[in-house]
Amino acid sequence: MFYHDGGKLQYPVRVEKPSPLFAKALQQAIGGIQGEVRVCLQYLFQAWGARGPAKYRDMLLETGTEEMAHIEMLATAVALNLEGAPLEQEAAAKDPVVKAALGGMNIQHVIGTCMAAMPVDSEGVPFNCSHVYASGNVAADMLANAMAESTGRMLAVQLWKMTDDPGMKDMLSYMIARDTMHQNQWMAAWEELGGRDNHPIPNSFPQADENQDYNYAFMSFGLGDDFEPPAGEWTKGKSFDGKGSNSMVKMRPLGEKPQLGAAPSSTAAQKGQMKD
Amino acid sequence: MFYHDGGKLQYPVRVEKPSPLFAKALQQAIGGIQGEVRVCLQYLFQAWGARGPAKYRDMLLETGTEEMAHIEMLATAVALNLEGAPLEQEAAAKDPVVKAALGGMNIQHVIGTCMAAMPVDSEGVPFNCSHVYASGNVAADMLANAMAESTGRMLAVQLWKMTDDPGMKDMLSYMIARDTMHQNQWMAAWEELGGRDNHPIPNSFPQADENQDYNYAFMSFGLGDDFEPPAGEWTKGKSFDGKGSNSMVKMRPLGEKPQLGAAPSSTAAQKGQMKD
Amino acid sequence: MFYHDGGKLQYPVRVEKPSPLFAKALQQAIGGIQGEVRVCLQYLFQAWGARGPAKYRDMLLETGTEEMAHIEMLATAVALNLEGAPLEQEAAAKDPVVKAALGGMNIQHVIGTCMAAMPVDSEGVPFNCSHVYASGNVAADMLANAMAESTGRMLAVQLWKMTDDPGMKDMLSYMIARDTMHQNQWMAAWEELGGRDNHPIPNSFPQADENQDYNYAFMSFGLGDDFEPPAGEWTKGKSFDGKGSNSMVKMRPLGEKPQLGAAPSSTAAQKGQMKD
Amino acid sequence: MFYHDGGKLQYPVRVEKPSPLFAKALQQAIGGIQGEVRVCLQYLFQAWGARGPAKYRDMLLETGTEEMAHIEMLATAVALNLEGAPLEQEAAAKDPVVKAALGGMNIQHVIGTCMAAMPVDSEGVPFNCSHVYASGNVAADMLANAMAESTGRMLAVQLWKMTDDPGMKDMLSYMIARDTMHQNQWMAAWEELGGRDNHPIPNSFPQADENQDYNYAFMSFGLGDDFEPPAGEWTKGKSFDGKGSNSMVKMRPLGEKPQLGAAPSSTAAQKGQMKD
Amino acid sequence: MFYHDGGKLQYPVRVEKPSPLFAKALQQAIGGIQGEVRVCLQYLFQAWGARGPAKYRDMLLETGTEEMAHIEMLATAVALNLEGAPLEQEAAAKDPVVKAALGGMNIQHVIGTCMAAMPVDSEGVPFNCSHVYASGNVAADMLANAMAESTGRMLAVQLWKMTDDPGMKDMLSYMIARDTMHQNQWMAAWEELGGRDNHPIPNSFPQADENQDYNYAFMSFGLGDDFEPPAGEWTKGKSFDGKGSNSMVKMRPLGEKPQLGAAPSSTAAQKGQMKD
Amino acid sequence: MFYHDGGKLQYPVRVEKPSPLFAKALQQAIGGIQGEVRVCLQYLFQAWGARGPAKYRDMLLETGTEEMAHIEMLATAVALNLEGAPLEQEAAAKDPVVKAALGGMNIQHVIGTCMAAMPVDSEGVPFNCSHVYASGNVAADMLANAMAESTGRMLAVQLWKMTDDPGMKDMLSYMIARDTMHQNQWMAAWEELGGRDNHPIPNSFPQADENQDYNYAFMSFGLGDDFEPPAGEWTKGKSFDGKGSNSMVKMRPLGEKPQLGAAPSSTAAQKGQMKD
Repeated sequence: MFYHDGGKLQYPVRVEKPSPLFAKALQQAIGGIQGEVRVCLQYLFQAWGARGPAKYRDMLLETGTEEMAHIEMLATAVALNLEGAPLEQEAAAKDPVVKAALGGMNIQHVIGTCMAAMPVDSEGVPFNCSHVYASGNVAADMLANAMAESTGRMLAVQLWKMTDDPGMKDMLSYMIARDTMHQNQWMAAWEELGGRDNHPIPNSFPQADENQDYNYAFMSFGLGDDFEPPAGEWTKGKSFDGKGSNSMVKMRPLGEKPQLGAAPSSTAAQKGQMKD
Repeated sequence: MFYHDGGKLQYPVRVEKPSPLFAKALQQAIGGIQGEVRVCLQYLFQAWGARGPAKYRDMLLETGTEEMAHIEMLATAVALNLEGAPLEQEAAAKDPVVKAALGGMNIQHVIGTCMAAMPVDSEGVPFNCSHVYASGNVAADMLANAMAESTGRMLAVQLWKMTDDPGMKDMLSYMIARDTMHQNQWMAAWEELGGRDNHPIPNSFPQADENQDYNYAFMSFGLGDDFEPPAGEWTKGKSFDGKGSNSMVKMRPLGEKPQLGAAPSSTAAQKGQMKD
Repeated sequence: MFYHDGGKLQYPVRVEKPSPLFAKALQQAIGGIQGEVRVCLQYLFQAWGARGPAKYRDMLLETGTEEMAHIEMLATAVALNLEGAPLEQEAAAKDPVVKAALGGMNIQHVIGTCMAAMPVDSEGVPFNCSHVYASGNVAADMLANAMAESTGRMLAVQLWKMTDDPGMKDMLSYMIARDTMHQNQWMAAWEELGGRDNHPIPNSFPQADENQDYNYAFMSFGLGDDFEPPAGEWTKGKSFDGKGSNSMVKMRPLGEKPQLGAAPSSTAAQKGQMKD
Repeated sequence: MFYHDGGKLQYPVRVEKPSPLFAKALQQAIGGIQGEVRVCLQYLFQAWGARGPAKYRDMLLETGTEEMAHIEMLATAVALNLEGAPLEQEAAAKDPVVKAALGGMNIQHVIGTCMAAMPVDSEGVPFNCSHVYASGNVAADMLANAMAESTGRMLAVQLWKMTDDPGMKDMLSYMIARDTMHQNQWMAAWEELGGRDNHPIPNSFPQADENQDYNYAFMSFGLGDDFEPPAGEWTKGKSFDGKGSNSMVKMRPLGEKPQLGAAPSSTAAQKGQMKD
Repeated sequence: MFYHDGGKLQYPVRVEKPSPLFAKALQQAIGGIQGEVRVCLQYLFQAWGARGPAKYRDMLLETGTEEMAHIEMLATAVALNLEGAPLEQEAAAKDPVVKAALGGMNIQHVIGTCMAAMPVDSEGVPFNCSHVYASGNVAADMLANAMAESTGRMLAVQLWKMTDDPGMKDMLSYMIARDTMHQNQWMAAWEELGGRDNHPIPNSFPQADENQDYNYAFMSFGLGDDFEPPAGEWTKGKSFDGKGSNSMVKMRPLGEKPQLGAAPSSTAAQKGQMKD
Repeated sequence: MFYHDGGKLQYPVRVEKPSPLFAKALQQAIGGIQGEVRVCLQYLFQAWGARGPAKYRDMLLETGTEEMAHIEMLATAVALNLEGAPLEQEAAAKDPVVKAALGGMNIQHVIGTCMAAMPVDSEGVPFNCSHVYASGNVAADMLANAMAESTGRMLAVQLWKMTDDPGMKDMLSYMIARDTMHQNQWMAAWEELGGRDNHPIPNSFPQADENQDYNYAFMSFGLGDDFEPPAGEWTKGKSFDGKGSNSMVKMRPLGEKPQLGAAPSSTAAQKGQMKD
């Protein structure tokens, strides 16, 4: 169960120079695939389905609860950036640059929400919950979370560069810091869980049942006399998981061209595709 | 530019006991978020947008090309599993269990594709390209790829358990092996790029510009006398990235309740929401 | 079955000063969630599934048929607003403001449809038929329709403010009037069906089977010394449906922390999450 | 900002006879358009964008926080219903009815999440945040919320009927009660805000600017000698909003057939569609 | 503007043996990509945006109006097939085959719509209006329509085979006939417009501006000694449009490996990807 | 199985004057419904599911492989057009026109991908794999492909007109040529397969089983004294498929108003909708 703190914000949000265009960009941090709706639901669904040691469930619940507060901050920031947006034709008609700005903003902020945030990305595409990655495997989930926070921090960094509003820079500086922590947190958990010894995920499947000829072979599909397969830690020495030795293989097909045969008469194929 | 090998398969695909229900489950490995359409497009788009050292572009191109062959294998497997599917009412009407099986399969395999695979998941939801994660930051992308291969291997393992068809078990054993390699490959690249020293991602943003009070603090939002914040590598000692010291903070709001003020008359709000 | 009137419009549509940017905004009234494709399909699907007194089916059929004409008017308005759009580079290259306008418009109107409307919203997101709300419960459907017409009228009002084209203002003035009627119509039907006595919807479920302790209690989840739960008609006196008395409850959990237990070995979880 | 109560549930959740098929049905209450993810985000986004009297913001925040707890309960219920699901082929192969049950369940619960809930509906379609209706107009939003709770209660009622598990019936009985309260709450707020005097929404637009001939006219589009336009509260007497008198009009087109003219040569039309 | 015929159906719809599973299959003909919602909106949007000779606009309007009636018939068929569906647990609990059938049906027909049709496909995926193809080029649109009717007829044929209900077979026999007509109609219009002389579409672009070396060359990307490029009408003789001569080319790259260079410091790339 | 040619491009791609706005427009050719991701996957899935004569499978595989190279070219073109995009506020703040351009571009190219292409359309909507049309009927598929190439060529033509960059014009001139070939190729295959004798598709269904009264009748639904049904090749003479004679019919309903009856008590309808 959850509580709110009377609507108080986790960190202050202020906007000195409202910008409808920046409001549109901020939407990516709410409803984009790198955004807060995603991580909030992702951590909570991971928590609610967690099986095994309780502390991972608890940690996920903690940070999922924090992300809710981040959506709240960003939604407030969007609403504040929309103050004074050119909602009506009078202003726009007078000034072609205002008109162009109107074209640049998310026009639904004017005509659909009375100047409020929506759970959509910077191009107006609604967030789709298929991006809530919760595999039930705690190691895989830690990687998913570290990745989400990495792209989340990239996004916050770009938004920080895009604005010179002191209030927005301050809020984003806080959010970038939280992304730093969260990246570290998920990778620390990944390490505590065994780190590289965790791999290959899932570690509960007996590797003896996988094809032993190709599980540590980097395959090259490149042609051309001047093409050299890319060498690196993945083509030589011990594998990352320490369980195999890397090699490099120039690929050729092991299977034949498939033969699906004629279409049965029970399908809606053309006559020429059927046996007779 | 790309070539095909006359339609030959990377690895043999055979089905001894066709199962329309297994065909439906296999669709998840084609068009699910853990599936091959996703990783294929993900690695290729990462390659095509790669800036910096060429070898990462090359490596991504190699494995993206391989994944195309995996879609081909799985599409073939779906088509073969649909042989003899109960397409018409005569069979179904006679046998209630056949009828139930018909209900369990993806009915579009019968009425929409003449017994062929589609780029949809096991529940019939089409793949959506927003899942092609390509951030342009090579370290973040390596994490995204390792995660995708982890859930991909989990999926292949579950499919392997779900079937007792020797052909399908053989094909899946090959795919599980490839997932093992690919997980290792992306993590090896992540390590070669600096591994934990890479963090926080992006490492090109001066950490001095992030809020210094909260970038290594695990925040607890839990209430209740019996709730103990979850302790672990993330609450004590050096941070995973080695650049800070973990701490634990019981959270309280730093910001006030936001005051958006009255709605301007230019919005479509109700009269009571406006100033007068 | 349906007929058309030779393509004549329900109400005249004319545009004196074409505006590709306004064409983009008008798309919201076609393919947005407040738009006409939605209400048209919503009323018709409600009609086609209506069970019970025939007059509600008939009324839904009437207004669903009208909304088809509204899509037609708006599609015409979009096409007329695109006359003279800056389709080619010559014009745009000469004038940075023209170029900016090109950026502001839906570029698919230029490159995808030969200057015609599409069933998408103002940000180019295609309409998704999950927004066709048809619950089969006539009282719930009347509320859904009243809400759709309320946001539809809000949208038309904002579009009216955004343009100073006399033709567009005239057309929108007609549409705002129709939204007024439709709001009234659905609420009148709601009232005729019993209004507040209809609630709680569905009224066909015996309320004795619902938990009697919490069906008229406003729950507060707020913390903080200065937080006062919001009082109103919902915290005191008789309930809106007249069947209970409102109260206010400070919430505490009634359930324990769930214990999902270890993951079974049949899942793809990590070894640490399983029993042994 | 938000807190959690150590993971304790708002109300106890227990399952005596796990049913993977019921788990699939329960998903509709999580990620369906009538579900809890929707109302949770809807109330919170409405709160975060609320302008005008603070008490509506507070009320929305309260109930949005409650809905988070409902998702938690339902996610727990799904996980518990999946205990003992037929994950592997051995069991299924033996028993055709088990195999059919496997076909009936959401197969991703087996192969994608290690037996946990997802933010998808009962057919596996992910929740799409375009369903988060937050218009910024408090009266329109109250109607949207009352409608959402009405269909939510309908859904809970049907789930209640579909199960005979005492734990599930108890949990659903609680949820049905909460839906009763929430329906009443939003309608009470609607009434407190003015109720029928609120209409037409938005009430901030001068009705003098709408077309006066058609704003209280029910339009009939029916043909056929035996068709009688459906009469009711909407065709006679005072309008629901008390601001007009209802009438009934047999429709005929007021506009002409639109003439879009030839396609300009700047489009990609065919030669025959252009002027010359 | 449009009229309805008092709700009368274009053709009689009757169901003798209701089948919830067939109701699910029929949904594909309503909300699938081969379905009637698609063609209805497609023809109407094509009509509303038509530029050039009026008769194509009129023809599109005619058949778009007809398709509305087809949705109506199918929605009625779904509702009738749901009569007696196993909505409650009592029946299902008694009989495992009933339970399996319940698993096979679209469970939202029970819990979401009170036994009525929805604009979704057979797997429960809502129709997405991006499938409304309206290019503005009348020749391209005729091809799109012929294709839609071809897959529509395939679907109807498969549904016809799937049922032995005389009423359903009769209705589908009528719909198959209409698909026959519509295929012929669009191809006849394509021919009247010039048929093969129409190509390449759009015919308004001067072919002199396209690359003359590769516009009639079939390119082969196949490797392997035993691979023979597929020969046919496309590799020899005059081209279909009569404007070129077909040839066959073994492909090699004409461009170099692209060099995107280092990432600028203004991006969120890693330090190693930037110049210094 | 597939190979790449060391990353070399099928045709050279160069950009002399980068334009972020043109990058946004180019996205339509990657991830739009007329774009290359679509045709690539469409041809490959058609190939992988092909039953009947092998040469159609081979031809589809060839051209599907080519389209992969087209995505590669376009992704490169997008990346090159983003060079020097106004990523930071300093530049934008100084110049309102730069700021407007920033508003016009896809802002995710700045904040989400480090200046790289994405599989989305020109409005930022991700490609959805439901557009991969693969019916399994080779004649229907040829029509689908010809249509896709027709709209693809229309798109490329419009992009060609929109730019005056010599490199972009050269690349598009090549792509337009390939679209010319592909249109011809699919129509040639359609003709080789029987052309008009193929129709109605599927030709494997006995036409005797379709309703004989309405399979060659153009139906008119128009009203109004001045409406004349549109006459053409479809209203007179032999049908396109040569199997019938066209006629024209003024429509009237053949079915009655459907009577769904009262809602069963097992639904969640209102009491008034049920029998008692």
